[in-house]
Amino acid sequence: MFPKNTWYVACAAHDIDTKPLGRKICNESIVFYRDDNGQVAAVEDFCPHRGAPLSLGYVCKGKLVCGYHGLEMGRDGKTIAMPGQRVQGFPAIKSYPVQERYGFIWVWTGDAERADPALIPHMEWYDNPEWAYGGGLYHVKADYRLMIDNLMDLTHETYVHATSIGQPEIDETPCKTVVNGDEVVTSRFMENIPAPPFWRAALRAKGLADDVPVDRWQICRFTPPSHVMIEVGVAHAGHGGYDAPAEHKVYSVVVDFITPETDTSMWYHWGMARKFNPQDTALTDQIREGQGKIFGEDLEMLERQQANLSAFPERKLLKLNIDAGGVQARRVIDRLISTEQAPQV
Amino acid sequence: MFPKNTWYVACAAHDIDTKPLGRKICNESIVFYRDDNGQVAAVEDFCPHRGAPLSLGYVCKGKLVCGYHGLEMGRDGKTIAMPGQRVQGFPAIKSYPVQERYGFIWVWTGDAERADPALIPHMEWYDNPEWAYGGGLYHVKADYRLMIDNLMDLTHETYVHATSIGQPEIDETPCKTVVNGDEVVTSRFMENIPAPPFWRAALRAKGLADDVPVDRWQICRFTPPSHVMIEVGVAHAGHGGYDAPAEHKVYSVVVDFITPETDTSMWYHWGMARKFNPQDTALTDQIREGQGKIFGEDLEMLERQQANLSAFPERKLLKLNIDAGGVQARRVIDRLISTEQAPQV
Amino acid sequence: MFPKNTWYVACAAHDIDTKPLGRKICNESIVFYRDDNGQVAAVEDFCPHRGAPLSLGYVCKGKLVCGYHGLEMGRDGKTIAMPGQRVQGFPAIKSYPVQERYGFIWVWTGDAERADPALIPHMEWYDNPEWAYGGGLYHVKADYRLMIDNLMDLTHETYVHATSIGQPEIDETPCKTVVNGDEVVTSRFMENIPAPPFWRAALRAKGLADDVPVDRWQICRFTPPSHVMIEVGVAHAGHGGYDAPAEHKVYSVVVDFITPETDTSMWYHWGMARKFNPQDTALTDQIREGQGKIFGEDLEMLERQQANLSAFPERKLLKLNIDAGGVQARRVIDRLISTEQAPQV
Repeated sequence: MFPKNTWYVACAAHDIDTKPLGRKICNESIVFYRDDNGQVAAVEDFCPHRGAPLSLGYVCKGKLVCGYHGLEMGRDGKTIAMPGQRVQGFPAIKSYPVQERYGFIWVWTGDAERADPALIPHMEWYDNPEWAYGGGLYHVKADYRLMIDNLMDLTHETYVHATSIGQPEIDETPCKTVVNGDEVVTSRFMENIPAPPFWRAALRAKGLADDVPVDRWQICRFTPPSHVMIEVGVAHAGHGGYDAPAEHKVYSVVVDFITPETDTSMWYHWGMARKFNPQDTALTDQIREGQGKIFGEDLEMLERQQANLSAFPERKLLKLNIDAGGVQARRVIDRLISTEQAPQV
Repeated sequence: MFPKNTWYVACAAHDIDTKPLGRKICNESIVFYRDDNGQVAAVEDFCPHRGAPLSLGYVCKGKLVCGYHGLEMGRDGKTIAMPGQRVQGFPAIKSYPVQERYGFIWVWTGDAERADPALIPHMEWYDNPEWAYGGGLYHVKADYRLMIDNLMDLTHETYVHATSIGQPEIDETPCKTVVNGDEVVTSRFMENIPAPPFWRAALRAKGLADDVPVDRWQICRFTPPSHVMIEVGVAHAGHGGYDAPAEHKVYSVVVDFITPETDTSMWYHWGMARKFNPQDTALTDQIREGQGKIFGEDLEMLERQQANLSAFPERKLLKLNIDAGGVQARRVIDRLISTEQAPQV
Repeated sequence: MFPKNTWYVACAAHDIDTKPLGRKICNESIVFYRDDNGQVAAVEDFCPHRGAPLSLGYVCKGKLVCGYHGLEMGRDGKTIAMPGQRVQGFPAIKSYPVQERYGFIWVWTGDAERADPALIPHMEWYDNPEWAYGGGLYHVKADYRLMIDNLMDLTHETYVHATSIGQPEIDETPCKTVVNGDEVVTSRFMENIPAPPFWRAALRAKGLADDVPVDRWQICRFTPPSHVMIEVGVAHAGHGGYDAPAEHKVYSVVVDFITPETDTSMWYHWGMARKFNPQDTALTDQIREGQGKIFGEDLEMLERQQANLSAFPERKLLKLNIDAGGVQARRVIDRLISTEQAPQV
């Protein structure tokens, strides 16, 4: 259950170079490649000749060539040529609107006529000298909405990430959830607390003391279909917390693009855009490695949670205050899905 | 198909220490842990908050804590506490009667009100200076009843265990099966035969000649739901066989606790309680290793047998004289199941 | 969907020595072994006693013995003996007509009364001093008919085998398909072209120049149920091509015995019988290794094609001129299947 008339992150831009990339997204088998202008194209991963996956083929002069019998596929899903054949009557395969933006490839899985690139959300950190970005990809065998729940309720950090970003003060501090149209925001502000290991390291990286009390914030922002941007950081206590001047704080945005693969699996693009020491590429690598390890701690939990939910589909889960972010995000998703499925007037 | 109103061996007592243990038994996902008194508890492996498996959590001051968001579960299946939440209204999960006895954890998978610890069979070898015990666990992808069949018909030793405990005289000596209520006993007594390698080693360990004729016995005792205790041993021939004085024989009980996991898989706890050289812990280790190797020889046979039976569910298997022990044991099991399923008057 | 009243290649003759071999063919689980005369026998891989796979047993004095309880099975599917049992009343299991011929074991999976060894096609290269043969086996998770399609349309060589036997001239030269009763022949003759690497090596092996234009031929011959013999070779241009005298050409037959395992998997016996340098066993090994590598390049394509076709069972594939060989072969197969299924008058 996922909206289709929307942009999903399919892969990182650098995942597609000279070879085509096959990836299933929202139950659709899609092959991505770059044409001779370097523009990304996406069509069904199914050769109309004999059903071979086009992703096993190659790109020649910007055309996708089937690796089985040499059929040349166009970016519109129509066959361009095939050795020794007239191809005008070949049935077209589905093509997908795609955009390359912010270092990612975005794909529209629904009605192509409604694919408006302006609907791709703006990422202010991209190509911006004040910011640095690093991230990675996990394949997770769980409903993508379990990851949204996870990211909209950070009390789990106390338990799942106890040695890095978790601390009891998260649990002890109530969060607040606000819905603005399709956007859901859950925020938590902790004051005068010790910094956990991840943030102590960040403070040191910026040359700030790591052994003094800090104010810490977490502002989780869901936007459809399944993006979660989380403003995170700490400031030396007494300087205004989230609003403290830059020299007293370390500030980042956790970037989560969660893309359904099937009903019970997802492609999870995670990363961190930070607004401190942006030129320090060694720090970028170090944070990517640390974040990858921390975010990897969630995977077994989510996959086993999915297995439990699949075994007991009739059980109703609790919706506590801490779950409000996920609950509201699911309402937005459900509303979008029912709008898509409603009869067009 | 298995009785539920009965005690099954869930695991060895030492399998549960400071961490919880998740294990599926009779199609029920259960988590076992020790409370602050060291008493074992068992509840469903399903957090009532969001369905996470509680076995991924930890035990804190004798309480089971969910590793996702810190919910504290009680041994009765009722939530004790959760950070920042009132938990009175939380739905309870199932709890299971458990007992620690004879070095194992026993779980009652059916109607908790009928769970009488007195129904756990007595193991005279436990904590008894005249005996020593060693054993292990195998996970086997086969109906647990195939293991009962296997253990109630030891003619297979001649073929499956030809190099250790098998010998043609097993095949050549008829066995006798007797049913006493819910107990089924299949016995075979072989006289004046050579000892096979396993028993030659046992004779040597006790300082007895291993190259003289022996009398050998196998008395397989099934009790519900799926325990098989097998009295085994050899005595120098001419001293009374099974009834020979201790100084002329080596005598053991093969201990088999067979616990269904699903309809086509099982947890198989095997071991040997021996009544010779009980203080010789090196011998215990040596026998455990040898038995583990021998019993491991059955696994492929049973799993492939299961695959064949699953492929041909309509085929009726033969019920020969040698199969009588398993056939009678299955009748007991079937009777217990139909009693459970009968409408309560 | 496969004909059953026909001979399939089950395995190479040397695959069955002292141990029995279990193999599923046309959805039938079969065990093959040699009796005391070295004659191959084949019965169901299912012991009538308790369903154990007989292939886990052993052969003793030419009798197949179940490895579980020692039942002795006869080549006619009737139990010969079992320790301590009268076996006259044991139900028989299915036995299969088998023949050893041309270095292979052939099995008839249908009505045994119709199994005429004369229906096994003649292989003129076998045990013939003018020829040498080498080959191997692949297990492929795809409908066996996808392999027939593959072998009856060699335009795929240009793409799948670009570095060995592929060349653009294959694509550029039309092929011609002829149906003679149950035989389908697709042929292609290319004139005055460069030889691709595989054939250059073959020319060198025979002491012929490899850098001169050649004529090349491919004559793919399908016969039911699923054999494809392909006459292949090159001759120095201007000497008559396919009909050139032996001293100007290198000539081989690609031997393909394609045996269904299940509806979506197959045993693929591939090989090459060559009519040049037959005494050169090092060349045989070298060609086997090269062919194994080349033919291995098809496997991922076919398995992924199968996955695509299974996901979209309703899609009609194109039937182009190049596909005519496979299309006609499937018509022959379909006709044989419907004949088998027709009510007997």
